[in-house]
Amino acid sequence: MEVITDRVEMNRIVKNHKYKAKTIGFVPTMGFLHEGHLSLVKKAKQDNDITIMSIFVNPTQFGPNEDFETYPRDFERDRRLAENAGVNYLFAPSVDEMYPNEMGNQLSVMKRTNVLCGKSREGHFDGVITVLSKLFHIVIPDKAYFGKKDAQQIAVVEGLVHDYFFPIEIVAVETVREKDGLAKSSRNVYLSVDERREAPALYKSLELAKNVILNGEKSPAKIREKIKEYIQKNTSGIIDYIEIYSYPALEPIANIHGKVIIALAVKFSKARLIDNIIMELEQ
Amino acid sequence: MEVITDRVEMNRIVKNHKYKAKTIGFVPTMGFLHEGHLSLVKKAKQDNDITIMSIFVNPTQFGPNEDFETYPRDFERDRRLAENAGVNYLFAPSVDEMYPNEMGNQLSVMKRTNVLCGKSREGHFDGVITVLSKLFHIVIPDKAYFGKKDAQQIAVVEGLVHDYFFPIEIVAVETVREKDGLAKSSRNVYLSVDERREAPALYKSLELAKNVILNGEKSPAKIREKIKEYIQKNTSGIIDYIEIYSYPALEPIANIHGKVIIALAVKFSKARLIDNIIMELEQ
Repeated sequence: MEVITDRVEMNRIVKNHKYKAKTIGFVPTMGFLHEGHLSLVKKAKQDNDITIMSIFVNPTQFGPNEDFETYPRDFERDRRLAENAGVNYLFAPSVDEMYPNEMGNQLSVMKRTNVLCGKSREGHFDGVITVLSKLFHIVIPDKAYFGKKDAQQIAVVEGLVHDYFFPIEIVAVETVREKDGLAKSSRNVYLSVDERREAPALYKSLELAKNVILNGEKSPAKIREKIKEYIQKNTSGIIDYIEIYSYPALEPIANIHGKVIIALAVKFSKARLIDNIIMELEQ
Repeated sequence: MEVITDRVEMNRIVKNHKYKAKTIGFVPTMGFLHEGHLSLVKKAKQDNDITIMSIFVNPTQFGPNEDFETYPRDFERDRRLAENAGVNYLFAPSVDEMYPNEMGNQLSVMKRTNVLCGKSREGHFDGVITVLSKLFHIVIPDKAYFGKKDAQQIAVVEGLVHDYFFPIEIVAVETVREKDGLAKSSRNVYLSVDERREAPALYKSLELAKNVILNGEKSPAKIREKIKEYIQKNTSGIIDYIEIYSYPALEPIANIHGKVIIALAVKFSKARLIDNIIMELEQ
């Protein structure tokens, strides 16, 4: 595995592979890798000749009061994990390399941004699509891999690719979970022992909601109430949101039908965790 | 020459050439071709294995009171001219093909937009960079060719490519002029006989300004005044703007120094014409 920090060199390497008709799979990450990321690499390796992972904690997708400074980082560990997983190139640019100058053009998400994490994290998805546009032009992937845990991110990125005709296929990969159901996340390390014990309640509340729906409940409000009760009873976390929307449009629905996402975010003392399930009901 | 109207097919063709290590030169146009466009094709053919021209009158770069509906179009003539010039693929999509859905993301120019054509044509450059982002992803050129007549457009497009790391080199080609100095433009056909006789005064006024500067005049205000007098004396047109800025930053300057653009736009009865010269003075 080669570690590349220069965007021009990364782009030159990719172009050389393209000239040899090699396909490129891309796994963009913010590092502090876990099995979720490695499952994306596994899929990318199955589908493509060359697998490139990026590690870049992107400042423009963090708000002023968020955890950019304290976001967990361990490059040596990440390098080892990426190499063992079979990544061919690890692209790890500096902030200056990705944002060399004040930008004169702005990319903004107009749809799907006023809900879920977009509501509580203002500007977050503008930062996500800005950095992904840059990364997509450097890495020129045929396919890019994202975890379903970040379901809103996948919807937003698919919107970006669709709007601007990026010649890239977005591949959504199942959320990897701990044995007790907690979704793998780089931020899980910031849970206290007690919080870690409580955290599986997030996914359990979503499974509970799923059963309630399968038993015929159609009211989003009632389902949200049940999730809320379960989380408040079983955790010390503070609920940021519990929402139910159509998917991937992320629009409000009066009653449960078609493809829906049930998503939540809960703040613990040092970590804000998110999780979701997507269900497709018969019309 | 092959005419392509489907963006997916165009993209597939390009990728096949890329897999054979062919380089792609791209000439984006709005059609109604003149020698200016053909000089871009000539340069593209010199530099690349494959030359692609697009013809697309982009609605999003026209304002509500502008000439989108009446912009001159003659596809059969353009097809013949492009083929004779040696274009390999002519990409001519419909509006629906380029804007299949309401967009969920917005690309906006934040710099260089409040001057020159950006001031009198609100949203114009947002439309330009939106359609070019789409076209660049479809055609995936190594180099893209633009005429220096649209100097602000070149500065804006270079800003876009630079901000988002499009792996594309922007090539600026000299303005092609009629024998009497009038810059070639698709809109020249809308000049009346009298206006056509007057129109060379635009370039003559810029040459006059150049001489005044070379003779030591440093005041942008005074130079603009001289241009204004010349145009008012020699044409029936209404001046939209006469401006002098640093180039390519397009920022106001207190006195003439370094690299500057002198640019103007003049409205005739049915056509608004633009022209400019760029000068580099010793510091």
